[in-house]
Amino acid sequence: MTQLEELLDLLRSFTAEREWAKFHDPKNLSMLLASEAGELLALLRWVDGPASDGWVRDSVNRPKVEAEVADVAIALLLFCDRAGVDLSEVVRRKITVNRRNYPAELARGHSTRPPRPEE
Amino acid sequence: MTQLEELLDLLRSFTAEREWAKFHDPKNLSMLLASEAGELLALLRWVDGPASDGWVRDSVNRPKVEAEVADVAIALLLFCDRAGVDLSEVVRRKITVNRRNYPAELARGHSTRPPRPEE
Amino acid sequence: MTQLEELLDLLRSFTAEREWAKFHDPKNLSMLLASEAGELLALLRWVDGPASDGWVRDSVNRPKVEAEVADVAIALLLFCDRAGVDLSEVVRRKITVNRRNYPAELARGHSTRPPRPEE
Amino acid sequence: MTQLEELLDLLRSFTAEREWAKFHDPKNLSMLLASEAGELLALLRWVDGPASDGWVRDSVNRPKVEAEVADVAIALLLFCDRAGVDLSEVVRRKITVNRRNYPAELARGHSTRPPRPEE
Repeated sequence: MTQLEELLDLLRSFTAEREWAKFHDPKNLSMLLASEAGELLALLRWVDGPASDGWVRDSVNRPKVEAEVADVAIALLLFCDRAGVDLSEVVRRKITVNRRNYPAELARGHSTRPPRPEE
Repeated sequence: MTQLEELLDLLRSFTAEREWAKFHDPKNLSMLLASEAGELLALLRWVDGPASDGWVRDSVNRPKVEAEVADVAIALLLFCDRAGVDLSEVVRRKITVNRRNYPAELARGHSTRPPRPEE
Repeated sequence: MTQLEELLDLLRSFTAEREWAKFHDPKNLSMLLASEAGELLALLRWVDGPASDGWVRDSVNRPKVEAEVADVAIALLLFCDRAGVDLSEVVRRKITVNRRNYPAELARGHSTRPPRPEE
Repeated sequence: MTQLEELLDLLRSFTAEREWAKFHDPKNLSMLLASEAGELLALLRWVDGPASDGWVRDSVNRPKVEAEVADVAIALLLFCDRAGVDLSEVVRRKITVNRRNYPAELARGHSTRPPRPEE
């Protein structure tokens, strides 16, 4: 069993024991995911960018950061499980697409998408 | 190497080749994560809840769903890598916390958090 | 003084008295806005779409809905004030653009954007 | 007619002409709102905080900022109209609550909520 399958297994039992499948359609889970991402955002909204590396490692903040990251991950895993998405596979495929859309020699050091000759 | 480490490895090369580390502080990555979660949300905002299981499996919609899920996962992995968060570990720990906060006998079939006697 | 100017006036005093201008750059306020929108989302994530009209009017839920709507509005007003955006004016202009992009005869009853012949 | 009523009036005609009321229940509109807030976030995710004041005023970026702000405002107005929320009224009330929760003498210069003796 892979690492992701182990986590999915834990989540499936957790959900089944609480009979929560009825709440967990893909629409509702997309809302769970976005609202949990919003909570991580809330933690960092007043922190300066360059200070945020230290902030997330500070022992007072760390448990909150980890809890929010976990909530986002759980929502994402529940969505993938319900929608039948192979998370590892789609990430690999997307990285391949991104390699094409952001060629290293054009994208280096820039945060904006390079012009696409084919379009 | 575990499954998550393999994905992190791919992302580290991708980021390094483009010299994007300077953009990827935890604050900025929390914004990336929330904005990508917003794109998945956008796909499903006009879809009825009960119809959303079929919608995400429809062959026209499927590639968009997978691409948005992948973008969210990539943002989450980049955040964890930058912040030094062990994703698998924090998810396990959070499931344990959730087991305590939502006891199966009280939470069964309800979407709201049961009252907490200890608080 | 218009209605929006009155609200902006209240917010300006509130912010000035607390010396919060230093936190309120456009980037941070976009994070405030998205995290507050995430909290409204969280309220409705397990509510069925057709039941949500009644849910937001239920006397138990109503104060929470109003508080989250207010938080989103305050974040939006703070952003507009800081960025010098005339909210009323940009909304009018966007409605005009939307009238063009979603012609009534093509968009009627559909939630997806009609094909654009000019593109 | 107040400024907000004028905007609501424009939006009501726009929605009615397209027979979109059926899509616009409060749940769906909360998703619209959060996804539009995510688009504003996306614009600013790689911009440094201190540089973001200039960035939103740059003539290349300005139209995008205004369009996203307008989309968020439209989603918020549609939500308020559907849910029967008086936007101006709830904002005033929330500012009063915030004055109490963040007393100026305690909150001055700090971004975190002061301790609440009453709780």
